[in-house]
Amino acid sequence: MHPDVAIAGLGITEMGKVYGRSAPDFAADAVRLAVTDAGLTLDDVDGLLINPGLSGGLDIGIAARLGLYNLPLLSVVNAYGSTASVMVMMASLAIAAGQATTVACVFADATLSPRSRTGAAYGSSGGGGRQLKGIRALGAAAGLGGAPSTYALAARRHMHEYGTNEDHFAAVAVSQRDWAADNPHAQMRDPITVEDHHNSRWIAEPFRLLDCCLVSNGGVAVVVTSAERARDLQQPPAYIWGWGQGHPGYVMERGCEWGLSTGAVQSGKAAFAMAGIGPDDIDVAQIYDCFTFTVIVTLEDYGFCAKGEGGPFAASGALGRGGSLPTNTGGGELSAYYMWGMTPVSEGVIQTRGQGGGRQVDDHDLVLVSGNGGTLDHHGSLILGSHPTGA
Amino acid sequence: MHPDVAIAGLGITEMGKVYGRSAPDFAADAVRLAVTDAGLTLDDVDGLLINPGLSGGLDIGIAARLGLYNLPLLSVVNAYGSTASVMVMMASLAIAAGQATTVACVFADATLSPRSRTGAAYGSSGGGGRQLKGIRALGAAAGLGGAPSTYALAARRHMHEYGTNEDHFAAVAVSQRDWAADNPHAQMRDPITVEDHHNSRWIAEPFRLLDCCLVSNGGVAVVVTSAERARDLQQPPAYIWGWGQGHPGYVMERGCEWGLSTGAVQSGKAAFAMAGIGPDDIDVAQIYDCFTFTVIVTLEDYGFCAKGEGGPFAASGALGRGGSLPTNTGGGELSAYYMWGMTPVSEGVIQTRGQGGGRQVDDHDLVLVSGNGGTLDHHGSLILGSHPTGA
Repeated sequence: MHPDVAIAGLGITEMGKVYGRSAPDFAADAVRLAVTDAGLTLDDVDGLLINPGLSGGLDIGIAARLGLYNLPLLSVVNAYGSTASVMVMMASLAIAAGQATTVACVFADATLSPRSRTGAAYGSSGGGGRQLKGIRALGAAAGLGGAPSTYALAARRHMHEYGTNEDHFAAVAVSQRDWAADNPHAQMRDPITVEDHHNSRWIAEPFRLLDCCLVSNGGVAVVVTSAERARDLQQPPAYIWGWGQGHPGYVMERGCEWGLSTGAVQSGKAAFAMAGIGPDDIDVAQIYDCFTFTVIVTLEDYGFCAKGEGGPFAASGALGRGGSLPTNTGGGELSAYYMWGMTPVSEGVIQTRGQGGGRQVDDHDLVLVSGNGGTLDHHGSLILGSHPTGA
Repeated sequence: MHPDVAIAGLGITEMGKVYGRSAPDFAADAVRLAVTDAGLTLDDVDGLLINPGLSGGLDIGIAARLGLYNLPLLSVVNAYGSTASVMVMMASLAIAAGQATTVACVFADATLSPRSRTGAAYGSSGGGGRQLKGIRALGAAAGLGGAPSTYALAARRHMHEYGTNEDHFAAVAVSQRDWAADNPHAQMRDPITVEDHHNSRWIAEPFRLLDCCLVSNGGVAVVVTSAERARDLQQPPAYIWGWGQGHPGYVMERGCEWGLSTGAVQSGKAAFAMAGIGPDDIDVAQIYDCFTFTVIVTLEDYGFCAKGEGGPFAASGALGRGGSLPTNTGGGELSAYYMWGMTPVSEGVIQTRGQGGGRQVDDHDLVLVSGNGGTLDHHGSLILGSHPTGA
């Protein structure tokens, strides 16, 4: 099947150390902004899918708060960093089936407070209140827990197997900061150099501060509707060409390919097949970048370069301005804002529309959007086009 | 649209004070049981939707734990007590679109421990870790918080407006306990009388102990697949005739119809319209029964009796054996087990199949299943049939 659907609206709130507002506050704002951006009103919305972050309090109650009653499609959806594409998929299926016509998909989080250590919400060791068992308990006892320390192990394996090094990591960080300079929503816009990267402090070896994504308070929403309707609205439609999920089970305990490969192998394959294209057709990539390393390994898994060549590919300048695959053109999660999978979705929509201003890529017909969750366990892909499928 | 889909498998774990097992444990067991019940193996499953309860730890990681890798449909879904029908809807949309062929939908919870006060997990006042604001904070300061105290206010309004009384509540409790006697999965099977109800202790006036649902450790799963495929499997298919959500925004703060009406008005209307039938066509009802009162008000909203007549309708014996609308024929959440919206779904499947044993209702062509969440804020409906739609 191929639903004839598009993203017609995008809402991005203030981002970063924005205090005194809750995740529901940000979610409501993001939905309102996305609906307005599309040239619609809240009365037009008949579906709402919600991906809460970690700060709590955000649930289906946000619908009534927005004055959205009796939605025929209302639910929380959560597949961690792969959620954004899952929400867009569910919205698309519902629209194709006539269950809803206009579905807002929103992510919001507000883990930062003036008293919090930046990043603490995502870096704490332990199991989030769960009782840890088996090897996870041993890992936690050894200080292993939280995203930086577990991803660090994955990165180490990739470095060991393929010769990936910190210059490769730095290339990703520097390139994305360069893109962020032209993104008014980006939290970090001052240029950085490879030296700045190498001089930044360790977080969890081999990751330095500039290898790690931001933690952001804020919200992002998109409005999905039929392609036909999107064409009559205010913004150029971002046509949905394909999607895919990938959950390969490369969890740390199982070993296998863990650290060397991600669910992008599967989610990319599914999305490319649905869109009827391949990696060579992609003009711009928005890759989930919780760490610099994640970009490198994910690019390989989509087939943009050979396995193990992600580091040299990044260092070649391919990801930057004028490069062969402009990537994370808004600065990504490393330099713009961290809204789980909605960070790549939001910049994907902007580039597809041609509204990137100083960071707009000339060729932007087909944009790949990537989501990643767990510790490389879960993956989602979306392919957005500036023209309809088959046109 | 009308997807040609059916529930082909049902799994119900041990229920109640079953200690030493987590929500993921129960969820994995329920999925395995449902798949086996259908005559399938886990290799046949290509979709998994998960509704975690309140005990934590249950998320999309359960897929890998079951050995289910690379599912093209995997997500947590949560719309509180209305989730069960939302999961079945999402599974159906995905199957109709070819996104998946065989989708397991599971709920599990494990809030009880040997040290917990029974029901404490669902009855604590406050906001579940959220900072309460405005009228909610005033309510909490006055001891208002947790399901019994808020539903008690709703029930009081219904009693005031319509003359509903504790004999009506007792009729629901007694009828359901009578049904439970023949349900081997039911936690409470000893008969009770109206006097037993009236003599049971207050929980939150006007609710006595026997007005309140159980709290259960356990899990329930169903397997949704195409109707065509379901016909080739082990069990009689429970064909999915219709579904609907209702979120009327009758939240306590807004007043309006709150306490007098539920989202069943909207979700029922949608489900009946999709199925092309009306309340008179329903043979058996499975009504979300967090409290006896909830059954009464919901029956009115579906149109099984006039508004305000739910109490006398229940007291007439309509809901019991030989009644005009056999309701909660497994004992429901009051006497069998409390698995959010999966309690009515599970008994709906059993009755549709004709597998209720001593509690089987003779006429079971069309079974209405109801879900309710928040404090009457959110509602879901499903209509199951023992024969295909239009047949």
